[in-house]
Amino acid sequence: MRTLVTGFEPFGGESTNPSFEAARRVGGVAVVELPCVFATSLQALREAIDEHDPELVLCVGQAGGRSGISVEKVAINLMEARIPDNAGARPMDAEVVRGGPAAYFTNLPVKAMVEAVRQAGVPASVSYSAGTFVCNQVAYGLAHLIATERPGLRGGFVHVPYSPGQVTTSSQPSMAVETVAHALRILVDTALTVEVDVPVVSGEIA
Amino acid sequence: MRTLVTGFEPFGGESTNPSFEAARRVGGVAVVELPCVFATSLQALREAIDEHDPELVLCVGQAGGRSGISVEKVAINLMEARIPDNAGARPMDAEVVRGGPAAYFTNLPVKAMVEAVRQAGVPASVSYSAGTFVCNQVAYGLAHLIATERPGLRGGFVHVPYSPGQVTTSSQPSMAVETVAHALRILVDTALTVEVDVPVVSGEIA
Amino acid sequence: MRTLVTGFEPFGGESTNPSFEAARRVGGVAVVELPCVFATSLQALREAIDEHDPELVLCVGQAGGRSGISVEKVAINLMEARIPDNAGARPMDAEVVRGGPAAYFTNLPVKAMVEAVRQAGVPASVSYSAGTFVCNQVAYGLAHLIATERPGLRGGFVHVPYSPGQVTTSSQPSMAVETVAHALRILVDTALTVEVDVPVVSGEIA
Amino acid sequence: MRTLVTGFEPFGGESTNPSFEAARRVGGVAVVELPCVFATSLQALREAIDEHDPELVLCVGQAGGRSGISVEKVAINLMEARIPDNAGARPMDAEVVRGGPAAYFTNLPVKAMVEAVRQAGVPASVSYSAGTFVCNQVAYGLAHLIATERPGLRGGFVHVPYSPGQVTTSSQPSMAVETVAHALRILVDTALTVEVDVPVVSGEIA
Repeated sequence: MRTLVTGFEPFGGESTNPSFEAARRVGGVAVVELPCVFATSLQALREAIDEHDPELVLCVGQAGGRSGISVEKVAINLMEARIPDNAGARPMDAEVVRGGPAAYFTNLPVKAMVEAVRQAGVPASVSYSAGTFVCNQVAYGLAHLIATERPGLRGGFVHVPYSPGQVTTSSQPSMAVETVAHALRILVDTALTVEVDVPVVSGEIA
Repeated sequence: MRTLVTGFEPFGGESTNPSFEAARRVGGVAVVELPCVFATSLQALREAIDEHDPELVLCVGQAGGRSGISVEKVAINLMEARIPDNAGARPMDAEVVRGGPAAYFTNLPVKAMVEAVRQAGVPASVSYSAGTFVCNQVAYGLAHLIATERPGLRGGFVHVPYSPGQVTTSSQPSMAVETVAHALRILVDTALTVEVDVPVVSGEIA
Repeated sequence: MRTLVTGFEPFGGESTNPSFEAARRVGGVAVVELPCVFATSLQALREAIDEHDPELVLCVGQAGGRSGISVEKVAINLMEARIPDNAGARPMDAEVVRGGPAAYFTNLPVKAMVEAVRQAGVPASVSYSAGTFVCNQVAYGLAHLIATERPGLRGGFVHVPYSPGQVTTSSQPSMAVETVAHALRILVDTALTVEVDVPVVSGEIA
Repeated sequence: MRTLVTGFEPFGGESTNPSFEAARRVGGVAVVELPCVFATSLQALREAIDEHDPELVLCVGQAGGRSGISVEKVAINLMEARIPDNAGARPMDAEVVRGGPAAYFTNLPVKAMVEAVRQAGVPASVSYSAGTFVCNQVAYGLAHLIATERPGLRGGFVHVPYSPGQVTTSSQPSMAVETVAHALRILVDTALTVEVDVPVVSGEIA
């Protein structure tokens, strides 16, 4: 296995998490489910990396309310939990890594990845905020691990929409798990093969 | 064939229309593509009904921006075209049927239909506005036909989201065509079998 | 007073209703607060009309989630309450007027009204659904009264956004009450003076 | 003057910018309009700071699409311009400060500032992304100046919604310029007086 894909366990009262459901369907990659728990998520990630020794790690999380695949460009050194994690913790104004840099940019070719997914007919964009919950913590922790211990490892974070079954009675956008899995497959292939990101403009005004 | 399902041709600069793509995948029903043209859509609908003599007609249209399946409760006697139809026409403050009633409610069990789709894990809701474009014209025209010529016919209109391929670069919600087709199958089955709508509350505040 | 403007009392757990707050600030019109109660709202409206004998009635209601002033084109003969009204009632699939037509179009020049408000720098649009709650009931009831008893009366319904104070912690759009009042003043003036609506295209796709 | 408030000139085809319109109405502060130009914005900011020698700098920008006041927690070392700036430049994957840290957190008490604005009845929240356009550049540049040259200076960035007049025909949220100015006044007062941020949880899931 050259690639490790992680998803999360359900959180926030949900009974499923599309990040793990889709990760399981990617095929040809090692798949690990991370706890949605600030206290243990990074240790679980480290153990998975130690066990599989991948050249690429793609961590995936649920971003309720987003309508497309979003590839995270940056993760910040901040934990601020609007809702409790699965262990009941609500860190506030806390650092992911004490004394770590304020943020890390991913070393993945995020624009090429987004373009490839769009070419396959799936909505996607680069995102400039992974939030401040466990997803961002894992994105930051992975980048910190790469920066401090595993310089050759490629790694990044991808947010995916709700699955349709999670929002049957709401007006939130969703994406079929099969579509998400298809996109993840493309993201992995692109991250493994593209050395230099494509020169297209992305960006957000605010 | 007991059921006729219609979809629309692409409009508004799109190269595909998820209503027809999904209708084709329903299976076990007659399927007809209607022109997105005020001048000919209702004649095409009438001919399809004459040809297939169904007991149920479900007309389906694309509602860009909506995130779930929406089953229309009402159609109004108004044509007001913010964009040109496929023949370049932009009717303004015009009646669908001259002297017709201001609106028709569908005779389909819309709440039971929505509940059945939700039970299958697909986002759905009752809608109280089909807009003022060709979709609403067809919804009104079908209801008028039933009211004036075919009292035994069941009929209604369903709006469906963009397909993912239509919104790869935007932040609009979408739904996989396979998911839409699955929902249409359930809507047809429910419309054919439920005689009395279920007593659940639906509604919109505004 | 040539004009009666009605607002609603707060509902849905709110402590204020911007429709009444704005109505009170219009000036030069009679202002009445209607109960947000299906059982009594139309009687209160009738009494206000009997008392003030206006030539124009503009009923105003809160449309949480909308970002601009919306002038309602149509009201439907349906009561369907997703939340209880202020008397705890939740009508379901009920008619506003037993045996009444499915809908009424307003006799106000909605496009001219919208254009005038926009000219004054305030976001506005024509709306084709007033929902299925007490607002729509009042809109329908007013139109029915005009159709059946007061053919010379002009009347219609306008939905307004939340006020800022109602959504301090949410991401819902809002509009300053002073801005809403300014828009209502313009709506009244336009409704009183424009005989033939302006030939601009409005409309919604779906 | 203890405080400098900056706004931006109009950009993106707009003829006004609510950030400057509101800044001008704050009162009791020095006000400077910054160019929406990557090549000159930071030099203009530096000159304004040199001229006024403030103890607090609050830079304000327009965030079209947001519905409330958003106080930025973080700025990133990235310029990526989806649209051209006012000089026609579209930097891509470029650093604000060559070799600078990936991000800076503001030294302002963002939670206390948000709470104070909400207490005054105005929608507000902490934001974890200032985008990748000139606003983020200025937010980052200000933080870098503080970190490297002016350790005693307090400084941060605030995004504000469109003004109503900018979105009269759209469905985008807006906020009256008077309301924005009122909020800015409160933000300044809070930033000047609160030494330790309040212990409330903020945060975003994703």
